[in-house]
Amino acid sequence: MSDNKIRIGIIGGGASGATACKACLEEGFDVVVFERSTYTGGLWRYHDEDVDGVASVAKSTIINSSKEMSAFSDFPPPKEFPNYMHNSKMVKYFDLYGEKFGYEKYVRFRHDIIKLEPNGDYESTGRWKITAKDNNNAGKLTEHVFDGVMVCTGHHVTPQVPTFKDQHLFKGQVVHTHSYKKPDPYSDKKVVVVGIGNSAGDAAVELSTVSEKVYLSTRTGTWISYRVGQNGMPSDSTFLRRSKNVLTSLLPYDTVCSFMEKGANKRIDHEEYQLKPKHRFLSQHVFVNDALPNRILSGTVCVKPDIDRFTPNGVIFKGESQETPCDVVLLATGYKVSFPFISQSLIPVKNNQVELYKYMFSPKLAHPKTLAFISLIQPIGAILPIGEMQSRWFAQLMANKLKLPDRQTMSAEIETKKQLIRQRYYNSDRHTIQVDWISFMDELAGQVGVKPPLLKYFFTDPELWRALVFGPSVPYQYRLEGPHSWSGARGAILTVEDRIGAALKTRAPDSRKSRGTKSLLTFTRFVGLILLLIFAYLFNLLF
Amino acid sequence: MSDNKIRIGIIGGGASGATACKACLEEGFDVVVFERSTYTGGLWRYHDEDVDGVASVAKSTIINSSKEMSAFSDFPPPKEFPNYMHNSKMVKYFDLYGEKFGYEKYVRFRHDIIKLEPNGDYESTGRWKITAKDNNNAGKLTEHVFDGVMVCTGHHVTPQVPTFKDQHLFKGQVVHTHSYKKPDPYSDKKVVVVGIGNSAGDAAVELSTVSEKVYLSTRTGTWISYRVGQNGMPSDSTFLRRSKNVLTSLLPYDTVCSFMEKGANKRIDHEEYQLKPKHRFLSQHVFVNDALPNRILSGTVCVKPDIDRFTPNGVIFKGESQETPCDVVLLATGYKVSFPFISQSLIPVKNNQVELYKYMFSPKLAHPKTLAFISLIQPIGAILPIGEMQSRWFAQLMANKLKLPDRQTMSAEIETKKQLIRQRYYNSDRHTIQVDWISFMDELAGQVGVKPPLLKYFFTDPELWRALVFGPSVPYQYRLEGPHSWSGARGAILTVEDRIGAALKTRAPDSRKSRGTKSLLTFTRFVGLILLLIFAYLFNLLF
Repeated sequence: MSDNKIRIGIIGGGASGATACKACLEEGFDVVVFERSTYTGGLWRYHDEDVDGVASVAKSTIINSSKEMSAFSDFPPPKEFPNYMHNSKMVKYFDLYGEKFGYEKYVRFRHDIIKLEPNGDYESTGRWKITAKDNNNAGKLTEHVFDGVMVCTGHHVTPQVPTFKDQHLFKGQVVHTHSYKKPDPYSDKKVVVVGIGNSAGDAAVELSTVSEKVYLSTRTGTWISYRVGQNGMPSDSTFLRRSKNVLTSLLPYDTVCSFMEKGANKRIDHEEYQLKPKHRFLSQHVFVNDALPNRILSGTVCVKPDIDRFTPNGVIFKGESQETPCDVVLLATGYKVSFPFISQSLIPVKNNQVELYKYMFSPKLAHPKTLAFISLIQPIGAILPIGEMQSRWFAQLMANKLKLPDRQTMSAEIETKKQLIRQRYYNSDRHTIQVDWISFMDELAGQVGVKPPLLKYFFTDPELWRALVFGPSVPYQYRLEGPHSWSGARGAILTVEDRIGAALKTRAPDSRKSRGTKSLLTFTRFVGLILLLIFAYLFNLLF
Repeated sequence: MSDNKIRIGIIGGGASGATACKACLEEGFDVVVFERSTYTGGLWRYHDEDVDGVASVAKSTIINSSKEMSAFSDFPPPKEFPNYMHNSKMVKYFDLYGEKFGYEKYVRFRHDIIKLEPNGDYESTGRWKITAKDNNNAGKLTEHVFDGVMVCTGHHVTPQVPTFKDQHLFKGQVVHTHSYKKPDPYSDKKVVVVGIGNSAGDAAVELSTVSEKVYLSTRTGTWISYRVGQNGMPSDSTFLRRSKNVLTSLLPYDTVCSFMEKGANKRIDHEEYQLKPKHRFLSQHVFVNDALPNRILSGTVCVKPDIDRFTPNGVIFKGESQETPCDVVLLATGYKVSFPFISQSLIPVKNNQVELYKYMFSPKLAHPKTLAFISLIQPIGAILPIGEMQSRWFAQLMANKLKLPDRQTMSAEIETKKQLIRQRYYNSDRHTIQVDWISFMDELAGQVGVKPPLLKYFFTDPELWRALVFGPSVPYQYRLEGPHSWSGARGAILTVEDRIGAALKTRAPDSRKSRGTKSLLTFTRFVGLILLLIFAYLFNLLF
């Protein structure tokens, strides 16, 4: 390694680590990735064993965002890959991505991070020191100094584990979904699933086919969304469009929520299903589950309020007096934001809240830009394109091509975002890192200088403009212009619907007509166009 | 047994056997039920073992018709039972039903029927002789003479097993869904499911969560229907209503189909999903599957055309040249109509076709009424209420309170129905016993004298009339009047929606409003009312 090169350390060799690594390589940095396990792909690479601190999905896990919306911005998934990828396909996609830039050769496997701390010369240089335990080498501790560090450990490492009254009396098992791999061990058992996040829904549905009885215990309820959207197309690709985003930004929040709640109740009456929350549709993280209504209607999943207390052989739910016998209580209660290797005095985490500018940089540090948290967000939309964009921004900053705003500006924005989240979401402890996909990506892209110039395209490339405004808001749009743009971006944007359709074309053509995906919501598009042309420039939302 | 009592033999102690037994007891007959296995409940009572000739559902099977629509007409399922019952709940319901009249004491378990033939005095008496093998008694053959016999063996006994080119080369397993119990043996295997009936859909979806790869091989495709209907209510309870039935009877068949196809395509574009059949929506038996679209969109179920030929390690699908490797081919190819214990010369079955008046009585016999086939039908709707109605009719006939029409009339009607089926359904070999629920029930009820007198209620009991015309067309309506009416029928009809809602109320009430199921499709109801009042009398459909 030559001495004048910028050195970056990346903690975590999952999918975020991969895109972080790539962004740094593109700027010519030296990169070292530290990975605890023996593989890349992070929690997406399924393994049977339950290892503390090494997250993995369940065997059957399928991603809830569709492939075109979840893609890295210069690397569309192969067209034959299904629209919602099983974890094995996700890993395949990450492997293909990594192969393109030789990812694995930058990764030091079996390295536990013991400590991340400012280097001795931090005040003047902003450098960080990583202490790693090398498990390839009898656990030898090694120290590494970097000009910048990217924390890519995600937020699915430290389970949030509530405790309940009289829990010590319970003779059954209490397990967190962190350890949930397959339904088999719960076969013919009575299981209470606690929580109403996506992992609660997935586990309840899966268990309902093998367990004797499945209770879904939720205090708040939830609004249900579906992978299969209108006409069977991936719902995120029909929902996350700039045209709709403008409409929802212009209309009052309550009106938008009412519209979405009406749609949700048309599928299932949330009140009849005992799932109706007191909060509005957009005041929660999106809950996606195509199978749950059918499981509830068939009684194989039984909705219950939260647990009041345990008994030796079961639980008593709030508002009930009778014991509900059960063998297992599965806590699908999510994860805590936590960085065990960083001192709380450097990056304090309080009530799941961490004060980071764009969820990346701490304005409290003397050199905010040299420590970045990547993908520490919970978007309504796909997470990885955001991690990628954050990585590109970090690389530009470290290359001194861009500058962060002053500390005061950053702190003020953090405060503003906190306020907005507090106003909008029903339980702010649970929703500390929520972002809306299009607006947050545009925010970041604005910093990086890769926001697509819509006004320019409106005059020079109306076909592209139309696709960007009325089509699915895909990540490729952020490779059209600016640093490390990609010549394939325009083509990828114009052929999104072909690739969505191609994944479904698994049988040899017969007399069936073959054609592309129909464009959706023609009426909305028309209304949208009129409104857009009138309002968009004024509101500076589109150009 | 006193000699002057009419003696009825019932072959098959499943759910149809139970209601057949009850109908005969109500007329004071002596009844003997022969059951091959050691239990009642028939194929609904799940067992792990795969026994030839003893059908059972898969462990996870849930009925596709909702509880209120599938009920016996004088015995609504307990209100807390789920709307779509798991097989264990179905059996529980049958047990409760049987307990009411001491069903089990009429059943001779472990009796195989070897032969059913006209008794020596048949020409003058119409009596039948059953030869049974008593497996409680070292397989001793016993003979029993009955005044009338009801065949309640259903049509899920003899699998339809197609063979394919080069099948002998295949080194993997070929299994019929008749033997499918659980997904476990197919874990991590590559499976081709052949067929597109309900068992194909159920198996493909279930396997897709555990198998390495699932292909769904279908020549024809299918229109998909859902259990979870509008607003989350059971779809059959919103669809099977007299008001809608009148509308669909008045409108041209193509218009009705187009309307339904439009709705189906709004959920998923059947062409994009490669499922669009060449036939119309109502030209197939209903295919119910809430989970399949999501499994196809996530690529965990892969739609394929039919198998062209086998190879040693897989299959080649039609129109493809490459082998698709697989370990198991699961034939979800349905069942044949067959009665192994009756001579083909008495009841000929050709191309799955059997010539029976109302799918019950053979006009070719000298005494048509003394041999009845029960539940030998495939309704768009629930099967058991039809079996019950057929049993009630048979009992009335045997009690000499009613008469069958002459042979010529019966034969002519059989021919007419055959023609209608041939015109409407896409593959008449597969659709030989199709009936529409409301019209067929009314047909039978007209014979028995239990059709609800709607014109009378219109004037004397408008609340009931409204429920009968605009509410779910539940079986209780056939206990309002006529032989063996039930005083609880009116109440049961007026409280259907309460019981639908009650099944969902599994959590203690909190501040949530508690109210009944909302009435659905207000606009359709309004239009329906207008049209009804104008046309109904003319068309003799309602009064």
